[in-house]
Amino acid sequence: MNKLPLNEAASRLKKVQQTITEMQADACIITSSVNQFWLCGFIFDGFLLLFPEGDLVLFVKRPSNIADERAVPIRKPEQIPGLLQERGFSLPKRVLIEADQLTLNAATRLQTALEMPEMVSISAVLRKLRSVKSEYELEQMRESARIHAQVYKIIPSLYSEGMTDLELQIEIERQMRLHGSMGIFRSFGDNMDIFMGSMLAGDNAQAPSPYDYALGGKGVSPLLPIGANGSILRPGTTLMVDMAGNYRPWMDDMTRTFAIGHAPDIAYKAHQVSIDINNAITQQFRAGAFCSELYLLAEEMVKENGLEPYFMGTTQQAKFIGHGVGLEINEPPVLTPRSKEVLEPGIAFALEPKFVLPGIGAVGIENTYIVHENGLEKITLCDEALTVLI
Amino acid sequence: MNKLPLNEAASRLKKVQQTITEMQADACIITSSVNQFWLCGFIFDGFLLLFPEGDLVLFVKRPSNIADERAVPIRKPEQIPGLLQERGFSLPKRVLIEADQLTLNAATRLQTALEMPEMVSISAVLRKLRSVKSEYELEQMRESARIHAQVYKIIPSLYSEGMTDLELQIEIERQMRLHGSMGIFRSFGDNMDIFMGSMLAGDNAQAPSPYDYALGGKGVSPLLPIGANGSILRPGTTLMVDMAGNYRPWMDDMTRTFAIGHAPDIAYKAHQVSIDINNAITQQFRAGAFCSELYLLAEEMVKENGLEPYFMGTTQQAKFIGHGVGLEINEPPVLTPRSKEVLEPGIAFALEPKFVLPGIGAVGIENTYIVHENGLEKITLCDEALTVLI
Repeated sequence: MNKLPLNEAASRLKKVQQTITEMQADACIITSSVNQFWLCGFIFDGFLLLFPEGDLVLFVKRPSNIADERAVPIRKPEQIPGLLQERGFSLPKRVLIEADQLTLNAATRLQTALEMPEMVSISAVLRKLRSVKSEYELEQMRESARIHAQVYKIIPSLYSEGMTDLELQIEIERQMRLHGSMGIFRSFGDNMDIFMGSMLAGDNAQAPSPYDYALGGKGVSPLLPIGANGSILRPGTTLMVDMAGNYRPWMDDMTRTFAIGHAPDIAYKAHQVSIDINNAITQQFRAGAFCSELYLLAEEMVKENGLEPYFMGTTQQAKFIGHGVGLEINEPPVLTPRSKEVLEPGIAFALEPKFVLPGIGAVGIENTYIVHENGLEKITLCDEALTVLI
Repeated sequence: MNKLPLNEAASRLKKVQQTITEMQADACIITSSVNQFWLCGFIFDGFLLLFPEGDLVLFVKRPSNIADERAVPIRKPEQIPGLLQERGFSLPKRVLIEADQLTLNAATRLQTALEMPEMVSISAVLRKLRSVKSEYELEQMRESARIHAQVYKIIPSLYSEGMTDLELQIEIERQMRLHGSMGIFRSFGDNMDIFMGSMLAGDNAQAPSPYDYALGGKGVSPLLPIGANGSILRPGTTLMVDMAGNYRPWMDDMTRTFAIGHAPDIAYKAHQVSIDINNAITQQFRAGAFCSELYLLAEEMVKENGLEPYFMGTTQQAKFIGHGVGLEINEPPVLTPRSKEVLEPGIAFALEPKFVLPGIGAVGIENTYIVHENGLEKITLCDEALTVLI
């Protein structure tokens, strides 16, 4: 897993080089960890340069011992022009940078160091390129999903009466780590803080959060207002488990819901609608579908069942039912009613039609699917029923 | 803990307003979670505006239910001019923004929305303001340090022969969470990924990392090349534990080292030099000292003991011995030989003179100190000796 296969590296390089040419740029400079990892298979502190042709050039601050013959030591961006000149490159006049990741100060310093080229963002294009996965990447997602399912299967044995959501979450986190979770998982943008995933018990599922997640939760600290809030798991309520599938660099995303003792019938009904939406979408769509069509079908089924007031929250409802997933948890496409995006073969996305029932809690499931020419492949193979914890 | 005391809120607001005046600006717009939290006591998705006089103005995208009468709903930055006008404000012509946190794209969009004011960074000034803590903040750090020490005391009971560094780390993480750790901890900049802290066993302490930490470690995934690497804890080696002190929003930082069975004499000797450096610095310095003086004293003691080749790493040596700590793990000042910074009363800093001994591992301690007029207060009160794990 440590070494990026040569054909993967070559095909990703080629995609970015085509972008450089299409965007009429002279070079592209990558500084974000996720995109460095995608192109190199490792992370470094420094500047990854790409040109319309030829191999990657790595200007590396740290680590000092990088095992790559293309690595050139550097201390600061001001050295880039000299180092390029030594290598026979002229200074780029139009440069693609990650304007959604680079801070204003870092971007300004880089532009000044390069003697004021025109700078154009490649962030969105890279996200789009990364959203279509290779078989190598998809296989990592399948592996991650298999481990994810193993961990979720243990959950009933971790539960004991009178526990809080947080106490159970801590035991699940431990199992995740023992099963190889790397702990952190990566997201795009500044608005996705979270720790190892989210557990929502009872009415905490109604609490809105500042973050871009499907549902919220109050959290236990004002510094991290999301997820479990220390609620005791009370009989008659539900517990939604949406912990991270970060067992490989390419992640899966999966939610399952548990009933604490006996849950009211409406919980079972709404939960089944979530399963039905998953099944209907799997049956009706494949590569070529518009993301908006998936949303609209889900919305229609929600309305048929009279569940609109509970769909994707109550006090703050999210107008989406899913999102791409990969190296980051929030990749394109986003499944919204107005999306113009199309499901392309190789896209992997999480589908999470969820309901929040006041006085009961959140119900529903989330699966990760891979888009193929002839259909959708579900990779999160794990019992979907509302499982009773006793 | 959820409610920011009024006098805290007022004094922080006043500091930023003085800065706005001194920097001859018309307004300041805060978007980062850490600085929002510092000024409001909570986090939201949106824009926190400050003017040279008057109260905060909160333009809030999410959450929808924010319990603050100053909150005004907003969907996008383009609404700011209209919302300001409604409130009798004229459009600012010179605006302070967090240019070390805002991405280039976000900053450009904000500048355009505000009809192209001059934009000046307040990031560094805010870090400097935050580096001097109030008694309220310092008390949180003391509380965090007390819990941190409780968790470290449990470590010997979590160890069993043949464990890997990662297995032990997972049990420590669980204890941290059970003791109230919020999981994530915040850092400044893009170069500080880590999960709950770092454990370095044996020669893994020599592995350089891409990150801005005192020491490195290979990690277990190329996506997170830092810390524990799955090494079996072998007799005759050491284990350095530098797990997070994130039990309160204002954190402490503490490292302790363990010997697996019997460690060689050089490990005890170098470990004692680290303790001696801590003690010498505590005895010799107080408010008014230059940070460089602390470094130079440490360096002198290292040389006297002939330990230069092992100081702060081997293959990649960090030229610093400590850093400010607070809401973020890497606050100013930084204790380097060329620092111009001065220890002011209310600054809290971590001091971590560490050694990496080839074939053995890392040794040394890290304590957090509060700077007072009459001396340094150690808040990480926890046995400092090289503790044997059996």
